Amino acid sequence: MNDKKIAIFDSGLGGLTVLKALKNILPNENYLYFGDVAHLPYGNKSKDAVIKYSEKIIQFLIQDQIKIIIFACNTASSFALDYIKQKFTIPMIGAINPSILYALRKTKNQNIAVIGTEATISSNIYQTLIKNNNQDAKILALSCPLFVPIIEEGWHNTTTAMNVAEIYLKRINQSDTDTLILGCTHYPLLQATLQSVINKNIELIDCSLAIAEATKRYISSNNLLNTQKEVNEIEFFVTDLPQKFNFMGSQFLGEKITNIQKVEI
Amino acid sequence: MNDKKIAIFDSGLGGLTVLKALKNILPNENYLYFGDVAHLPYGNKSKDAVIKYSEKIIQFLIQDQIKIIIFACNTASSFALDYIKQKFTIPMIGAINPSILYALRKTKNQNIAVIGTEATISSNIYQTLIKNNNQDAKILALSCPLFVPIIEEGWHNTTTAMNVAEIYLKRINQSDTDTLILGCTHYPLLQATLQSVINKNIELIDCSLAIAEATKRYISSNNLLNTQKEVNEIEFFVTDLPQKFNFMGSQFLGEKITNIQKVEI
Repeated sequence: MNDKKIAIFDSGLGGLTVLKALKNILPNENYLYFGDVAHLPYGNKSKDAVIKYSEKIIQFLIQDQIKIIIFACNTASSFALDYIKQKFTIPMIGAINPSILYALRKTKNQNIAVIGTEATISSNIYQTLIKNNNQDAKILALSCPLFVPIIEEGWHNTTTAMNVAEIYLKRINQSDTDTLILGCTHYPLLQATLQSVINKNIELIDCSLAIAEATKRYISSNNLLNTQKEVNEIEFFVTDLPQKFNFMGSQFLGEKITNIQKVEI
Repeated sequence: MNDKKIAIFDSGLGGLTVLKALKNILPNENYLYFGDVAHLPYGNKSKDAVIKYSEKIIQFLIQDQIKIIIFACNTASSFALDYIKQKFTIPMIGAINPSILYALRKTKNQNIAVIGTEATISSNIYQTLIKNNNQDAKILALSCPLFVPIIEEGWHNTTTAMNVAEIYLKRINQSDTDTLILGCTHYPLLQATLQSVINKNIELIDCSLAIAEATKRYISSNNLLNTQKEVNEIEFFVTDLPQKFNFMGSQFLGEKITNIQKVEI
């Protein structure tokens, strides 16, 4: 029995899709969500800045009763996770490896595509890590900068979203891709639209599910599960209090967000 | 003769449209551009946070040889300008009043529309200031959150931009509006697309031109013009160094950006 919290951090709202997936498969756990909205989005910040923010957040989190920290943000995972892991002993799971390992298990022809923000794709992290696992893999990596704002506008199930998706995914549909990684924690909200645009033979890998499943495997095999049946608790910490977090966050999480505290880091 | 610099500040790139307009009508001046890209975009930050950032930037700027500071950012103008003006003696011009005064001179039927980011529109600043100047004005204010990301994706002259503009501007086209204020310093790049979608009888007010003209009037009437014919100088200061600033910034400004220095504030 371990009733310490699972901490999830992101620059903003995207990580809430991971929290939602975690709550589904680990309903007995206590959670802490940290949104660094003062610096949102990380995707347009430099590597040095993202490392600095991430390190401050980890220092804040480890003062609490935390058993594992999830980097539910592709940019922080890409820029900061390796460096941060060397400085702290607490277990950490990033946003990138779980989807890659899942995709490598699913693909039949080793043609994997990944979509993400400009920062994620231009960091080459997916391309590098997939190649490290399978030298024969052929990777098509495409940035889709308009997907996040379309989702945050609430337009993810509209004709506009579909038209933009058709433009962005055209090259993937014309390729031999059989597995497409959604490399951004916002994208699970776009899943229905992407599914309607992408070739039927291409399997979508929902990163929020992959991260949640990797977390479950880790805490199960390390005896960190909270086996006590109790009402689970979610605390929210943010570095700024924009109006939007509350309203949009509830859409991402699928339930009302309360208990938000603003902190300085 | 006054060779002190005109300082322009914004959270990111948008203010470069104002710098471009200023350079056109005041080619002999020296300029300093400050982009607070570490906190970009201001539109999703709280009022308190934007005031704090703006104050630190003004404190940084006044250590230099500056004759006037332009808030080339609607959110900073809305949230921080009034408060900041009381704390410093240096002349300041905001992004909002110049367009409003221009629109009030142009409109024939007092039906004025304004488009901007969610933060700008929900602040009610345009609505309040237009009413303060003309109680009979009828104002239609609409947020268009996808315009900035579409411009930053370089899609401002595409079918997608036109489709999104048709959706956003529909209510304006159905109204009695005769004057439309572009209430965001990014939007001048969308002008051709907006012009093609908006009713022909509606006049667009380009905020970058309005701000530049208000600045020229102010420094002319206060004997602050640099009358010495010389090669003008532009310095750029940013609070972070994302790859994008350089490349996209050159598109906004219409010329290559060099001489960028990173500073902590």
